[in-house]
Amino acid sequence: MQNHLIEPSKVDEIISKVHLDLPSEKVNFIESLGRTLAEDIYADRDFPPFDRVAMDGIGIHHSAIENNNNLFAIEGVQPAGSSQLTLKDNGNCIEVMTGAILPKGADVVIPYEWTERKGEKMCVLDFKHAQTFTNVHRKGVDVKKGEVLIKKGTVITSAEIGIITTVGKEEVIVKTLPKVAVIATGDELVGVDQIPADYQIRMSNCYSIQSRLKEEGISSKIYHIVDDKDALKEKIKGLFTSYDIFVFSGGVSKGKFDYLPQVFEELGVVKQFHGVKQRPGKPFWFGITKNNQPIFALPGNPVSTYLCANRYLLPWLRQELNKEINQGKAILDSNYSFSKPLTYFLQVKSYYNKLGELCVSPTTGGGSGDLANLSNADAFVELPSDKNSFKKGDKLPIWFYKK
Amino acid sequence: MQNHLIEPSKVDEIISKVHLDLPSEKVNFIESLGRTLAEDIYADRDFPPFDRVAMDGIGIHHSAIENNNNLFAIEGVQPAGSSQLTLKDNGNCIEVMTGAILPKGADVVIPYEWTERKGEKMCVLDFKHAQTFTNVHRKGVDVKKGEVLIKKGTVITSAEIGIITTVGKEEVIVKTLPKVAVIATGDELVGVDQIPADYQIRMSNCYSIQSRLKEEGISSKIYHIVDDKDALKEKIKGLFTSYDIFVFSGGVSKGKFDYLPQVFEELGVVKQFHGVKQRPGKPFWFGITKNNQPIFALPGNPVSTYLCANRYLLPWLRQELNKEINQGKAILDSNYSFSKPLTYFLQVKSYYNKLGELCVSPTTGGGSGDLANLSNADAFVELPSDKNSFKKGDKLPIWFYKK
Repeated sequence: MQNHLIEPSKVDEIISKVHLDLPSEKVNFIESLGRTLAEDIYADRDFPPFDRVAMDGIGIHHSAIENNNNLFAIEGVQPAGSSQLTLKDNGNCIEVMTGAILPKGADVVIPYEWTERKGEKMCVLDFKHAQTFTNVHRKGVDVKKGEVLIKKGTVITSAEIGIITTVGKEEVIVKTLPKVAVIATGDELVGVDQIPADYQIRMSNCYSIQSRLKEEGISSKIYHIVDDKDALKEKIKGLFTSYDIFVFSGGVSKGKFDYLPQVFEELGVVKQFHGVKQRPGKPFWFGITKNNQPIFALPGNPVSTYLCANRYLLPWLRQELNKEINQGKAILDSNYSFSKPLTYFLQVKSYYNKLGELCVSPTTGGGSGDLANLSNADAFVELPSDKNSFKKGDKLPIWFYKK
Repeated sequence: MQNHLIEPSKVDEIISKVHLDLPSEKVNFIESLGRTLAEDIYADRDFPPFDRVAMDGIGIHHSAIENNNNLFAIEGVQPAGSSQLTLKDNGNCIEVMTGAILPKGADVVIPYEWTERKGEKMCVLDFKHAQTFTNVHRKGVDVKKGEVLIKKGTVITSAEIGIITTVGKEEVIVKTLPKVAVIATGDELVGVDQIPADYQIRMSNCYSIQSRLKEEGISSKIYHIVDDKDALKEKIKGLFTSYDIFVFSGGVSKGKFDYLPQVFEELGVVKQFHGVKQRPGKPFWFGITKNNQPIFALPGNPVSTYLCANRYLLPWLRQELNKEINQGKAILDSNYSFSKPLTYFLQVKSYYNKLGELCVSPTTGGGSGDLANLSNADAFVELPSDKNSFKKGDKLPIWFYKK
């Protein structure tokens, strides 16, 4: 390959400079799961919104404790969800339920566990050092009305859904998701529903990429373009108007019919690199269109495509959507050697040892074409190019593709 | 609480004995992502299905190397996706493209990088120890026709989608997903679109549970039942006929209107436990209906509900769907004390240190009612009850709720 090969770290550097300019949209809160907030979420009231009973029991006035009163006539019951009662006599009590508003005039809650019912009265067996506002979750103690609860840019998970619904945000402003085109090239490809001739194979890379994106909550559309330069050029030009991100599979090697790099050049795409000092995935091509749309042109080999998608495309997408990127390392559980001066992405199966540490075993796959091995493994570890012998116990960067 | 409190490990033991009896269904492969395979996936042909050219270059016969022939007349071009050509003369070559079938009569591929074009001929500059089948990915070397590629029970990720499409499985048999009812109880609850009165709050737990299930690919339906014993009983009885799993939020404390345990009993549900030696989530109630449907009745406090869902419900569901359960531990990055003889689930924010080790910082939340803190944290660590002082550097079981 006459291209100047670059290191994976350089790939990261180049790709991380590309930024999506995603507008905002309003969606129902139910649809906002997994999306990136484009507004701050405020408290619409204090939280708790009222002095909230924290234990089932009786509400009394603290002066009763000081007066050594331990027998309380019951004035009534304050259930959760009912309007506030008033304790009329400081020597009496009101039965109070968890989640209820504390009755006016009461300022201590004594749990049922510390009491005994005596006919129409409640007898407190032990005050257990109860004092003003014991077992009361006080109004505004968690959050004051108007405070920011969730910052713009936060990714909405189930935890945020709980907050969003609490403050009554029926609609939430989120970043739009990028529109992604996944384009398979290669005359040897036939559809999943076809019986391939001896020299043909079925389309699969485009589906594994599409599924990988779907696992990250991003939908994409699949195209298949044959190895005809004019057809490629016309079709790709058309797609440029409709998508934010392009992921190609195949067509970037050195074959006579690997027209993509040339077609991209003719369409004004600025090549950033072609070829990475790595295995698998060496022929990876990356460029940027005149409208700042990134083009990830991945090698056609299934494992190469999948590695490049997981090692470069997904982390970059997560970064653009403010999602966290795994920076963890895993402990290699056996020696492994790799002689070439390349970064090698080793397929591994991860597990936790008895100490709860993340460990990995190399999986015995065949060549880089052995797609079935991807199912047995669940991650790649990154073996840097400056070493060729890795020892049991070495800690290596890990790129998960299964959770 | 007069109930006998049990340890979290005992909860695991009890819940893990409940098994869902999920039937199978056939879905389109596109819809199978995240589902659990209910059939083996076989290779419908050898993989590679033909002697596959692994580099762009020329296909020759190995005898040429032995004969010190390094100048080859070009007989033609073998592109990927075209039917097999035949090399007529062992002293000639055919140009071959990556992914193409190897021409009949050729048995070595010399990459373009090792050659130079001389008019109508190709000159090999260096054979680099090429021999029979160098740069040929041989038919069936990865997988033989009829071999099992993915075993029944495997969870289908994007990696499996690549394999399923490769073998042309348009439809896949998977386990059906469980039908889950999420039921909010409590008269204090109003809808997300309502303006609550002073003593009311909006429904939120049911949405965070529903979203947490959705993050695991499981859809659920939400119900709200008021604190009326007859209404509860009638409604729940009806739901028993339509769902596999029940998750309740609220109504299991010791309040006058916490009717659930009694209603469950009257409906023939066998209580397994009521109360766990833990904070948050102490009042957690769990039972099994006559038809072996589990009932997770979670405390109404938002953090308690969320902890119980993440610590017990989700891992059990993942186990039932053959998904892996995180068994990792995280390193506590500061000292932490907790005086009560309970298992304490501490809200933490995780990160990786420079060695790539998983570390956690306790997040400064208020009481267990401080829902907003769940957004700042991303996991709980489990502080066992037999200690009350935890040191920086301690390794603790971690339960993630954000990825």
